[in-house]
Amino acid sequence: MADVDVDYCVVGAGFAGLTAALRLTQSGHSVALLEARDRLGGRTFTEVRDDGSWIDRGGAWIGPGQDRIYALMDEFGVPSYKQYTDGEAMMVVGGKQYRYEGTIPLTMSPWAAANLGAVFLELGSMCKTIPLDAPWQAKKAADWDKISLAKWLDDNVLSTPAHELLETAIAGCYTSAASEVSMLFVLYQMASGGGPSFVLGVKDAAEDARPVGGMGAVYRPMAAEIGDSVYLSQPVRRIDQDAGGVSIRSENMSVRARRVIVAVPLAIASQIRYEPMLPVDRSFLHQRMPSGAIFKIAAVYDEPFWRADGLSGQSAAPGSAATITIDAGTNAATPGVMCVIVEGPIARDLGRLGEAERRRSVLGELAARFGHRAASPVDYVEQNWSAERYSGGAMLSHAPTGVLTEFGHALREPCGRIHWAGTESSPVMCGWVDGAVRSGERAAREVTEHDGLFPA
Amino acid sequence: MADVDVDYCVVGAGFAGLTAALRLTQSGHSVALLEARDRLGGRTFTEVRDDGSWIDRGGAWIGPGQDRIYALMDEFGVPSYKQYTDGEAMMVVGGKQYRYEGTIPLTMSPWAAANLGAVFLELGSMCKTIPLDAPWQAKKAADWDKISLAKWLDDNVLSTPAHELLETAIAGCYTSAASEVSMLFVLYQMASGGGPSFVLGVKDAAEDARPVGGMGAVYRPMAAEIGDSVYLSQPVRRIDQDAGGVSIRSENMSVRARRVIVAVPLAIASQIRYEPMLPVDRSFLHQRMPSGAIFKIAAVYDEPFWRADGLSGQSAAPGSAATITIDAGTNAATPGVMCVIVEGPIARDLGRLGEAERRRSVLGELAARFGHRAASPVDYVEQNWSAERYSGGAMLSHAPTGVLTEFGHALREPCGRIHWAGTESSPVMCGWVDGAVRSGERAAREVTEHDGLFPA
Repeated sequence: MADVDVDYCVVGAGFAGLTAALRLTQSGHSVALLEARDRLGGRTFTEVRDDGSWIDRGGAWIGPGQDRIYALMDEFGVPSYKQYTDGEAMMVVGGKQYRYEGTIPLTMSPWAAANLGAVFLELGSMCKTIPLDAPWQAKKAADWDKISLAKWLDDNVLSTPAHELLETAIAGCYTSAASEVSMLFVLYQMASGGGPSFVLGVKDAAEDARPVGGMGAVYRPMAAEIGDSVYLSQPVRRIDQDAGGVSIRSENMSVRARRVIVAVPLAIASQIRYEPMLPVDRSFLHQRMPSGAIFKIAAVYDEPFWRADGLSGQSAAPGSAATITIDAGTNAATPGVMCVIVEGPIARDLGRLGEAERRRSVLGELAARFGHRAASPVDYVEQNWSAERYSGGAMLSHAPTGVLTEFGHALREPCGRIHWAGTESSPVMCGWVDGAVRSGERAAREVTEHDGLFPA
Repeated sequence: MADVDVDYCVVGAGFAGLTAALRLTQSGHSVALLEARDRLGGRTFTEVRDDGSWIDRGGAWIGPGQDRIYALMDEFGVPSYKQYTDGEAMMVVGGKQYRYEGTIPLTMSPWAAANLGAVFLELGSMCKTIPLDAPWQAKKAADWDKISLAKWLDDNVLSTPAHELLETAIAGCYTSAASEVSMLFVLYQMASGGGPSFVLGVKDAAEDARPVGGMGAVYRPMAAEIGDSVYLSQPVRRIDQDAGGVSIRSENMSVRARRVIVAVPLAIASQIRYEPMLPVDRSFLHQRMPSGAIFKIAAVYDEPFWRADGLSGQSAAPGSAATITIDAGTNAATPGVMCVIVEGPIARDLGRLGEAERRRSVLGELAARFGHRAASPVDYVEQNWSAERYSGGAMLSHAPTGVLTEFGHALREPCGRIHWAGTESSPVMCGWVDGAVRSGERAAREVTEHDGLFPA
C-alpha cells in the first residue's frame, strides 16, 4: 500500500476535483488527487479519433456567462468554436416531421405557441425570485418544493404539444422523469444559469460553443500541470478524521492530509465510509440527490450531409429512441458527427435492449429524420452513463421535493476537515462544467482559508 | 479471513434477514447470516433492564392483521400484551393542553373535527384503489406520484389544527418532512396496513399490542435456532455473482453460496459494491429511497404515575421536543416507562443539541404535560436512529415523488442470484416488523424455488 503525505487530498478527477487540485498546486501546496476510474474527466469524457476529430461522450458545451471554464480554457490556450446552428431544426410529433427555425417550433398552433411563450415568461419571472445562495429562502420556496415539475407542467401548460416539448426539454436536463424532480430545484437550477432561455436554448445559451478538441483538451493539460499527484484507479473507500488531520484510503493507497475535498456526485459520496460519521443533514443529502439515466451516442459520417439539406441537425422527438439530436461536428468538411441524446425513462428502456437492437432503433430514427445515409455511419460510439459505476448515473444529481428546503444548506457546508465540490454545490451554473470549475475554485480557497494559509 | 461455503447467504439480521435465515435453516439448508452490527434486530433493538423490564429502542408494536409476526411469536412461545390505553390522551396546541378520549381530539372545533373526519374517509377510499402488488397501477397513481404529502394536505385539509395534527401523524410515519414523501407512497404504505385507521390508530390498530419481553424476546430465540450460522460485526462490502454462485465479502469474512438474500434498508444496500453492477432500475432505487430521522427516548420511573391522573400517556404536541408520547410500560406496578418519539425535521433539530440540553428539553416537555415527577426519571434511554451507521436513519425508507411509478417494480425483482428482503419489499404491512417477517419468508421461498429445491 502506497502511503502519501500531502497538504490536501482531492477525491475525484472530474472538472471540480481537477480545478481544486490545480489551484492548490499553483499556490504551492502539495496535493494528492485520487480518481476511482482509469481515466480523467468524470462526467466529461473526450475520445480522440484517429483522424484527429473528437467525440465528447459526456458534458460538452459551454455558453455565455460560463466565465470560469472560459478562463481555464484561456489559461491552457484552448480556443472555442461555435455550435453549428445554421438551417432548420426539426420537431417530430405523432410520427410527423415539422421543420422550423428559431427556438419555438412555428409549426405549432398559435395557441400552443402562445402557451409555450407564456410559460417561458412565467418560468423566467419565477427564476428571478430565487436567491441562488439559498433557494429555499425564495418567497414561494415551500410551495414549489412540495410539487414535482410534472405537477407544475400539468397545472400550467394546457396545450398538449407545448406540454410534451417542455416536459422532454426540462426533465431531460435532470435525465429523469418530470415526476421525480422538485419544482423548486428546477427553478434553482435554471436560475443558476440565468433563466429558462439559457437552459433550454442553444445559440447564445447553454449549447452555444465547445472547446476545440473537446473537454479533454482542457482537462488533459490541467492534469499534466498537477503532474505526479494524480492517481488513477484509486476508488476511495474510507475517510477518517482526527484532531491532526484526515486519512483517505482507497483499495491500495493511503493518503494523509490536513483537509480533503470530495468532488464526486452525491450518490457516489454516499458509498464512502466516513469516520466519524458525517453530520445527519449531509449524510441524508447523500441519500437524497440521485443521478439519472442518459445515453449519449455519436454517429460519425464522412460528412455532415444534413447541412446540405438545410437542416441544422437539431431535432426533438419526444418519446423516441433518438429523443434529441444535435450536430456535434465542427466547421471541417469531414467528419460529420451526429449526437443523439436519450434521457430519463426512455434511456432506461433503451438500456434494456441488446446493443445491436439499440443501435438499430437509434439509426432507424436518424434515417427517418435525415435520410438513408444516416443509417450507415462509419463509426458509432455509445456512452451509457447509467453503467458508469463511479458516476452512479448522470448528468446532474437532482433534488426531489422537500430536499432543498430540508437539506440544501448542507450542499457546501464543510464537515470538519471534509470539504465538498462538484457542480451540484455551485450556486452559479449548477449542473454545467462551469459550475464544476467554480466549485473546485471555491473549495480550494476554502481549505486554505480554513488553515489560515492564503495562496501566495 | 474466514471462508464459509453454504447453500444460501443472508445479509442483515433484522427481522427480514433473521426470518429468511430461520426458514432456510428449518428446511434443511446451510446458511450464513452476516450482520454488520455487533447486535441482532436491525431496526428493532430491545434492551433488558436489571429489573427484568425491557425497553424497545426501535420497532415495538404489533396489531391485528399482522399474522406473520404473531405466528413467529407463537412458534417461540412469546405471548403478547395490550398497549395501555385507559384514560385520556392529550393534545398540545399553541402551548395549551387539551385532554380527550378516542382518536379525534374532541376539543377541536366542530369544523376542524369534521374536516379531520372527512379527510380520514377520503384517505380510506383512496387507499382502496391501490393494488398492493403494483401501486403504480392505481387509476390515479400518476397524479398522486407527482405531488408530495405536503401538497395533498395543503389542498385537502383546510382546518389549521386538523392539518397540523395530520401532518405530524402521517409524515411521522416516514420520519421525514411531509414535503419529502410522495402521496402515492403514503397511500400505498397506508393501504398495505389496511388503511388510515390502522396506521394512525393505537387500539385495534398499529400500536395495539407488544410482545412480552419486547422484540428481543422474538429475535433472540430466532437467532439461537439459526445457531452458529449467525455472524455479527460483518459489514458486507462486496457481492460478486458468477455462473456458479455468488461470493459475499465482509471486512474479514468470505462466503460462497448459491444465492444471497440482501435484507438491509435501501440506502444501506447502495453502499455494497456489486459485481457485475446491478440492473439500472435497482441501483437507481437504492439512490432514491432514503431513510428519515427519529429519536426514540424512554424515560423510566418507579411507577406509571400518569395513569393515576387519568391519563393514558398518549400525547401529541406538533413541533415540540417531545412530539409524541406513549406509555411503554406493561400492567406491572413498576416501572413506569414513558416513550417519547420525535421524528423528521424536529428530530434533526434535536440531534444538533448536546446530550444534556436535549434531555433537559425532552424532560421539560414531559413535566409540563404529566407533572413534576416526569422531570426526574430513574433511567433515561435515548436512541438516535440517524446515528446508526447500518440503518442509515429510520424507520421506514420512503419513496419521493415519481419513484414508485418509475422504479417500484424493482422493489422485489431478484437480480440474478441476489434476492431482496426487508419490510420495504413487502406489499402487506410494508414498514412494520410484520412486513419484514413476510419479506423474509417470501425471499426464503424465492431462493429455493429458483434453485428447484422446495423445502421438505
